[in-house]
Amino acid sequence: MTQVYDKVALIGLGLIASSMFWAMKRGGLASEVRGFARSSETRETARKIGLCDVVCDSLKEAVKDADLVVLCVPVGVMGDVAKEIAPFLKAGATVSDVGSVKNAVIDAVGPHLPEGVEFIPAHPLAGTEHSGPEAGFAELFDNRFTVLVPVEGSEKKAISKLRELWEGMGANVEEMDADHHDLVLAVTSHAPHLIAYTMVGVADDLSRVTDSEVIKYSAAGFRDFTRIAASDPTMWRDVFLNNKEATLEILGRFTEELFALQRAIRTGDGEHLFDYFTHTRAIRRGIIEAGQDTDAPNFGREKK
Amino acid sequence: MTQVYDKVALIGLGLIASSMFWAMKRGGLASEVRGFARSSETRETARKIGLCDVVCDSLKEAVKDADLVVLCVPVGVMGDVAKEIAPFLKAGATVSDVGSVKNAVIDAVGPHLPEGVEFIPAHPLAGTEHSGPEAGFAELFDNRFTVLVPVEGSEKKAISKLRELWEGMGANVEEMDADHHDLVLAVTSHAPHLIAYTMVGVADDLSRVTDSEVIKYSAAGFRDFTRIAASDPTMWRDVFLNNKEATLEILGRFTEELFALQRAIRTGDGEHLFDYFTHTRAIRRGIIEAGQDTDAPNFGREKK
Repeated sequence: MTQVYDKVALIGLGLIASSMFWAMKRGGLASEVRGFARSSETRETARKIGLCDVVCDSLKEAVKDADLVVLCVPVGVMGDVAKEIAPFLKAGATVSDVGSVKNAVIDAVGPHLPEGVEFIPAHPLAGTEHSGPEAGFAELFDNRFTVLVPVEGSEKKAISKLRELWEGMGANVEEMDADHHDLVLAVTSHAPHLIAYTMVGVADDLSRVTDSEVIKYSAAGFRDFTRIAASDPTMWRDVFLNNKEATLEILGRFTEELFALQRAIRTGDGEHLFDYFTHTRAIRRGIIEAGQDTDAPNFGREKK
Repeated sequence: MTQVYDKVALIGLGLIASSMFWAMKRGGLASEVRGFARSSETRETARKIGLCDVVCDSLKEAVKDADLVVLCVPVGVMGDVAKEIAPFLKAGATVSDVGSVKNAVIDAVGPHLPEGVEFIPAHPLAGTEHSGPEAGFAELFDNRFTVLVPVEGSEKKAISKLRELWEGMGANVEEMDADHHDLVLAVTSHAPHLIAYTMVGVADDLSRVTDSEVIKYSAAGFRDFTRIAASDPTMWRDVFLNNKEATLEILGRFTEELFALQRAIRTGDGEHLFDYFTHTRAIRRGIIEAGQDTDAPNFGREKK
């Protein structure tokens, strides 16, 4: 139990913020965590379940004494929130965020922050398909990666402190620049989500196969796609609108490869298909060896 | 414990056949189950782990007294195996299979079977990403669906018996015709698998993002794709080569939809994206309500 910050403010109380709160409590990482959410319903839920030491009804109240302010709102509103909190930030405070894209957040937030406030963008690569204040749990970040994306002029000491917080919440911490972050995430997260959304949308919209058939026979593979296609629509709309270039680049590569495989199917090129399908097994093995997924059949969701 | 068949032969001893054996034993559904595999290594493994009451070194020995013979080999070799066993089949025996496509199997197997043998194609919609004789377990079919695809002239009594066997192994049994089966599976299984293989292949083949980065940051969505892209390459090669039309039709619809979403990203049409992403949540809810997937976050693979 090592306290890293005295006072922390979480702005936005969804899956990530609520998990951060429980993880900070578990690790004794902050003496007081204040939370703010725009919706009064969310604040009420937070109060009911004991989420945050203090739930505030205004941004000002939440951030004014905070040593660390973490923006946990959809990427599309980060700039507006930064503008609103700027006048109330304590000198020497650190502002961070948990947005899934970094270039756009840096562009939107950076200009609003006053001198004497450290801005250290961050992105915990963890989540579930559930959203909202009740979706969080302390273990969400355990053995997952959090990427820090320091901007020009970020103070070394402030970076170390934020790193210490994330490590205290269970995460492995890496640093990279915003361009590389946005490309890596386009591959490991944004393109896969768009593809999953697309496949589920297609299945839902066929005239010759009913939804009830899709549902009944989903265990043959389809159901894996529906999990990530059940993620929060606002968050994902903002991700795609704010990581356009990298996402479109990866989707372009994806389509090219898909067309090559379709062609192999059409022409009956079994060797091409077999080689391709053999190759992709290695990545799965790597992920399991790195402790990033379970080797249990079907993710262990069924009894064995 | 109700015996359905006296003697059963399983041809091919991979994930499905081994699960069938354990499920038949669990339910006391057959007095003797014989197994055959082309590879002596597989037969040796089967003997070592007690898979099948008798492991046979020849197809003849496996099928000659069997009341039910189930072909559990890749779709591409079903026809050859049917031809080989045909002379040894007992009069009145039923031949079935577990192939993931049905039109191609019917075309390949049907012509080889002698008069007086019932042919009832079947497809259990269950599996894991693991393969081989050691991958099976008795619960694989519990609450999953098995589709029977009777051909012209299939005897009602023989169909009921096969249905009873599958129900005894825990499955819900449905009947449909081969065309519809192949289309439904193209949606719920074949297209999703090809898409997952493609995405994993793309991630593995980028010059600006390393494999080690893809692996480390896979928990952000990508890892869900790697599970089904780790499935048996031979089986899947054969599936695509033998369900060309339906798979290509669904992939065509998929590409069309993907292009529309890419366009929405490029033009900044957030409303289109939001509506699409909201819509797809309903299918997920349906799948969970139908007991075809878990509601636990991340498939429950991590402790909560």
